[in-house]
Parts: sequence; C-alpha cells; structure tokens
Amino acid sequence: MMDVKIERLLINYKTLEDFKQFQAYGIQELSMLDDLQNEIVENDSESPFYGIYYGDHLVARMSLYRRSAKYDDYFNPPQDYLVLFKLEVLEDYRGNGYGEMLVNFAKEFQLPIKTNPYMDSSDFWEKMGFEAVSYNMERDLGENPYIWLPPGVKEALQPSE
Amino acid sequence: MMDVKIERLLINYKTLEDFKQFQAYGIQELSMLDDLQNEIVENDSESPFYGIYYGDHLVARMSLYRRSAKYDDYFNPPQDYLVLFKLEVLEDYRGNGYGEMLVNFAKEFQLPIKTNPYMDSSDFWEKMGFEAVSYNMERDLGENPYIWLPPGVKEALQPSE
Repeated sequence: MMDVKIERLLINYKTLEDFKQFQAYGIQELSMLDDLQNEIVENDSESPFYGIYYGDHLVARMSLYRRSAKYDDYFNPPQDYLVLFKLEVLEDYRGNGYGEMLVNFAKEFQLPIKTNPYMDSSDFWEKMGFEAVSYNMERDLGENPYIWLPPGVKEALQPSE
Repeated sequence: MMDVKIERLLINYKTLEDFKQFQAYGIQELSMLDDLQNEIVENDSESPFYGIYYGDHLVARMSLYRRSAKYDDYFNPPQDYLVLFKLEVLEDYRGNGYGEMLVNFAKEFQLPIKTNPYMDSSDFWEKMGFEAVSYNMERDLGENPYIWLPPGVKEALQPSE
C-alpha cells in the first residue's frame, strides 16, 4: 500500500471540482461553491470534509460534524457526538482500506459516532465496530442509523411511544 | 395504463415479504417484522406505507410521516408537515407514472412536504413542483432536502450561523 494520509479538505475550486466525481454530490457541495464564488467563505478555508489524496487526486472523503448534546437522541448519557456522512471511496480506488482509514480517524476523537449508511454497507459498518440502532419511527424515519460507542457510552433508551 | 389505485399498506407477512424487493429495505422493515413476530403489533394493522399493487403484486411504495410543528425547521410559518421517504417503484414497473401518483396522493393532504431524495432524482422532484432547500449544515448534514409548499407557505428563513 502506498503511504497515504488523511487531510482536512480546504474549500477552493480544486476541491469543489474534485467533489464532482463522488456520487453523493448534492446541495451541500453546491452551497460551498456558491459561498466561495460570492466570497462568503475565503479561499482555502477549512471544510467539514476529510479526504485521502493519491498523488494530487482526491480518491476518498467523508464529512464529520460535531453535534451538540442538546440534539442527542442516540446516546446515554446524552453528549456531544459526531455525525459521519458522505463516506465514499472512488470506485477505482476501493479495496485499499481507505474507507477503514477514514472511519478509524473519526474514532480517534473518542466521541460517539452516528452514521446513516447506504443500504448495502451494513457488513462494512459492523466490521468497523458499529451497530444498528433500535429503530424509532419519529426519530429515524427513512434512515438506517449505525452508531459507534466509545467506552462508557450506551445506546439511548427508546422513548415509549 | 391499467387501472391502479393507492392503498394504505397493512402490516402482515405478505407485505413484509413484498418489501424485500425494494432497495430501501432497512431497519424500519426489520423492526416491523420483529414487532409482528413478537405480537407487539396486530396482524393487518396500518403501516406508515402507501403502495400500488399490480394484481396482487406490490410494485411501488412510499412512506409518509406527519411531523409535528414543534420539529419544523423547514417552513414558514412553522407547522405540521409530511416527511415523504422510501418512494420507490420496482424497476420493471417504472415509466408508468406510479411515482407521480404516489407524490400527488401525498400532496392531497395540503400540508407542506419534505423529502430527502436520492442524488440523481432532482429532475423528478422539480417536475413534481418540489424545490431544493437552501442548505444548512447543522440541519441538513448529508441530506439533500426537497420541499413542496402548498399555497400560503414559504420556506423557513435560514438561521444565522
């Protein structure tokens, strides 16, 4: 395996062009582009994305957002936690452990993590030590949340309905 | 076009078997199956899903959930709204307008609607009169919400960050 490292992605035209190769390109990316063009954010400011470059080619990324304890419906006791989303490795670069590297990076913050994976990736998340939550309609709707619990943290008790 | 109608789906073993054909099969469906097996829900009780049968074959479905105004971050004035999710037509039955029928059915409640479509379906939602929201990181994270506004309802103002 080539020596690779995880970098905080900077908001600039190159990053936003790189993002177009990822399937989960949506209004978040369009909004970042808009903010850059309208000088609402400075060039090279930090984005909520982390990525892996192969040479100067962005080949994997994820977004991490730290959500405040007051919005925590998943963990016991309620606490700040990370929402991990848009984890994606470009197709030609899969099978090199880049996805695992990104998830392990997220775990290093030692905060509980919540993600809402695509349907067919439960094997991956279970291998990474995540577990499916107990489904709650009001909270989860169409999501399939998987959570990772650092030591001392449990899944939140389900509210009675 | 064959005469088709939209039905509220009942929770029973046939419905839950039919659900396995849909890509967005996840913990919600597993939880419904579990509740049925453990007699937590009665056989043939109402589900949050609506569907279209072709003969006795379920070929399209969506889930609708009425969320209370106190959780409304999307509309102005804040009000009860519908979350539409897991809209899906089985591949062999696409191109017959079943998706449109289901969305039009949802609109008949005359409540604002929020959905979080798959990446490549923005054309469909725009054709159905939905619009992309202004992206807000804290609220939307990895989602790409599209909303439908009945008369007199506007998109919520963005909170300043």
